[in-house]
Amino acid sequence: MRSSRPAVHPVEAPPPQGENADGAPLAARMKDTQGAPGTPGGLGLRLVQVFFAAASLAAMVSTNDFASVTAFCYLVAALILQCLWSLSLALVDIYALLVKRSLRNLQASCIFSIGDLITGTLTLGAACASAGITVLIGNDLEICAGNHCASFMTATAMAFISWFALAPSCVLNFWSVASRL
Amino acid sequence: MRSSRPAVHPVEAPPPQGENADGAPLAARMKDTQGAPGTPGGLGLRLVQVFFAAASLAAMVSTNDFASVTAFCYLVAALILQCLWSLSLALVDIYALLVKRSLRNLQASCIFSIGDLITGTLTLGAACASAGITVLIGNDLEICAGNHCASFMTATAMAFISWFALAPSCVLNFWSVASRL
Repeated sequence: MRSSRPAVHPVEAPPPQGENADGAPLAARMKDTQGAPGTPGGLGLRLVQVFFAAASLAAMVSTNDFASVTAFCYLVAALILQCLWSLSLALVDIYALLVKRSLRNLQASCIFSIGDLITGTLTLGAACASAGITVLIGNDLEICAGNHCASFMTATAMAFISWFALAPSCVLNFWSVASRL
Repeated sequence: MRSSRPAVHPVEAPPPQGENADGAPLAARMKDTQGAPGTPGGLGLRLVQVFFAAASLAAMVSTNDFASVTAFCYLVAALILQCLWSLSLALVDIYALLVKRSLRNLQASCIFSIGDLITGTLTLGAACASAGITVLIGNDLEICAGNHCASFMTATAMAFISWFALAPSCVLNFWSVASRL
């Protein structure tokens, strides 16, 4: 009977999965969703966010009387935060692409998704508040003559575009965290 | 060498997991997160959403001049949608609790999370737009004397509370979908 037990574990070990020591073969093997952190799509989304947030900021700051309206000051603050956040994540994405490392780390995804949720909510709120006031000035009160309606509208529209570019990043990060917990 | 191969698959089959035919034992066995659809916590969240959205709606409609500001009209529209959505989901929760069925169905969670995302974004946007205009009237222009500042502030605050009650439902539904796909 001893001869019928050639090995204790006759089942072959499965090919190694999960993270390996240096991470590089894993990044090459696993298919990242385009738009997730560490992919060209994700970097593109971040650059779009930075570009439109900066353009919105420039349009708003170019008016000399934005500081007299609280909502416009809040938009400027939210856009500065959005610029800094998206720019830092764009740099992280560039680094990940250069060294060909995957950013599918759970802690990193957690931080990215919480940060995206917070900046997204702030930017959406600020853009909506500015839109409300721009429509009030332009359509309801019709006092565009004495105000910089065009700049306010441009800044609001750019802030919305920046938020629309942030939404997929946020959803993908949140999805990536939720599907692994 | 043939005698050394006692069995082709010596590994035991794992115990069956996943959904069963009628769903009832699964619902009893799996522990639902409080706040998810079909739980008392979820029903409580929905009732809070309905209550504060209705209170905000009542406060806004009680002013006779809200229709002259586009953002306030938008808030009224968003709050009506929020009321209807949260009320229908509250009824679904009550039904699920009465017949003791779990609402951990993937299609239902998908519909709930997409609906929550849409109504949440609309309510947040409307609340922020109203807040911007309320602050403009009250703090920046200081023309509260001729306006219903108190009602506008109450309506805005209630809309924000309704959104804060919606956010956990939305996150839990989204989480529930993402963790099963």
